[in-house]
Amino acid sequence: MTELIAYLGPAGTFTEEVTMKYSSGCPLLLKPLPSLEKVMDAVDNGDAKLGVVPVENSSEGSVNLTFDLLARGRRAKIRGELLHRVQHSLLVRPGQAPEGIVQICSHPQALAQCRGFLEKNYAKTVIHSMASTAEAAALVAQSEGKAALASGRAAQLYGLQILEENVQDESNNITRFLLLALQDAPPTGEDKTSLLLGLNDRPGSLYSVLGIFADKDINLTKIESRPIRSDLGKYIFFLDIEGHRNDPVVERALEELDKRALFLKVLGSYPKGKLLS
Amino acid sequence: MTELIAYLGPAGTFTEEVTMKYSSGCPLLLKPLPSLEKVMDAVDNGDAKLGVVPVENSSEGSVNLTFDLLARGRRAKIRGELLHRVQHSLLVRPGQAPEGIVQICSHPQALAQCRGFLEKNYAKTVIHSMASTAEAAALVAQSEGKAALASGRAAQLYGLQILEENVQDESNNITRFLLLALQDAPPTGEDKTSLLLGLNDRPGSLYSVLGIFADKDINLTKIESRPIRSDLGKYIFFLDIEGHRNDPVVERALEELDKRALFLKVLGSYPKGKLLS
Repeated sequence: MTELIAYLGPAGTFTEEVTMKYSSGCPLLLKPLPSLEKVMDAVDNGDAKLGVVPVENSSEGSVNLTFDLLARGRRAKIRGELLHRVQHSLLVRPGQAPEGIVQICSHPQALAQCRGFLEKNYAKTVIHSMASTAEAAALVAQSEGKAALASGRAAQLYGLQILEENVQDESNNITRFLLLALQDAPPTGEDKTSLLLGLNDRPGSLYSVLGIFADKDINLTKIESRPIRSDLGKYIFFLDIEGHRNDPVVERALEELDKRALFLKVLGSYPKGKLLS
Repeated sequence: MTELIAYLGPAGTFTEEVTMKYSSGCPLLLKPLPSLEKVMDAVDNGDAKLGVVPVENSSEGSVNLTFDLLARGRRAKIRGELLHRVQHSLLVRPGQAPEGIVQICSHPQALAQCRGFLEKNYAKTVIHSMASTAEAAALVAQSEGKAALASGRAAQLYGLQILEENVQDESNNITRFLLLALQDAPPTGEDKTSLLLGLNDRPGSLYSVLGIFADKDINLTKIESRPIRSDLGKYIFFLDIEGHRNDPVVERALEELDKRALFLKVLGSYPKGKLLS
């Protein structure tokens, strides 16, 4: 039986693009799901072997939501990170002339990432925010005088023409995705570990906890505080550190951390991501 | 001349709701703008005296985008924070029977915040993600058999009926908004200061910087690392600390910080927010 890899859909999003790249050549069936929760649920209950969700500098969906969902009692672990260069194209129906474009549709983050391009070339065109770049492409396929900012893959899927490629303002526009599974990854020597940490909200409590890592020369690659939903003023922290949870030095750091924190959850250890090409 | 207060629109969003509460009784004209950038630009160039944007646990738009935009060379400062209890209602066209609802539309975060309600009552209904709760309400007003998760204000604006109130899973669902202006606020004795900080990516560099605050008993209420867009692996930090930039102890901490950081930008000092009622 072919295993499923679930991802945040619909088809034609950048999440689909990175999922296709990652699973290329593997016996995995791609399964688009309509929300981050549904992707995580599919992994939790074994319907999908793997799941792919955007997590940082994303052009699709909300990164904060990804963390909020991971914070709840889930079985899914982080098994990998996928780095993907996001390249936006301006897509139109075949034959649509640039001067006839009266509306440009896309996800708010894609619109923001192409802001310079839009101001230079389409300063007077109506901008329409949509829930995803793929839905923008689908809308453009049905209407005259519209253009979408979306992936080349979306052009293929919706029979659109690429009017201009690489219209994002920063050529080095990289998005990070998480690969989820019921088990995290074995050590490779080049790993990262993601942690969820609850702390008392008082001066120096974060400082004292970070001292555990500093003392052991463990590098911190990400830190984010999130208010605890039901209690504004209390915080949980998402931390990414270098090293695997089975590395002895990391193991000792996690033991010390566990004693000082209100709670500690290891979200997973996984190999450091390389940019997919 | 009446001054403008710009906010992330369209009309009927939770950002509008909090902006109306904040400006109630003030000679301010509300101006919805279609993107976070446009709100910040309006403040930067003096078209609007004030601007309101969502920043944490928001049901509208992207929080990360708010920070990314603040990181760039802007004149706008943070002059205040507005805390707002977000209450979602299930809205339908007048006369629509609950059993005839075949699709429920809203922003992905609103859908996530009402997940338990949806699973219990509408497990088999199609869920449709949209760019904002207000746009979902507008769509529902035009179609049969649809319902939106949105604010009570959206019901008024789009002539919809409230089928059920307070359908979010957490009764204490609080969103934080930033109030922007060309100048930040004077000290009140109960203030916060938001900072943008660039650091070398090496073990202990964040720890050493947080030591400045811990030594001076300055509480940290938020910390977030964001990858520098053009250079994955390098990070900027957004920090909120307690105290005003003109308080002597904060002033000394900022001087020390400035010496150790790659760069430091004070985004603004402002009174600690209270929950608007």
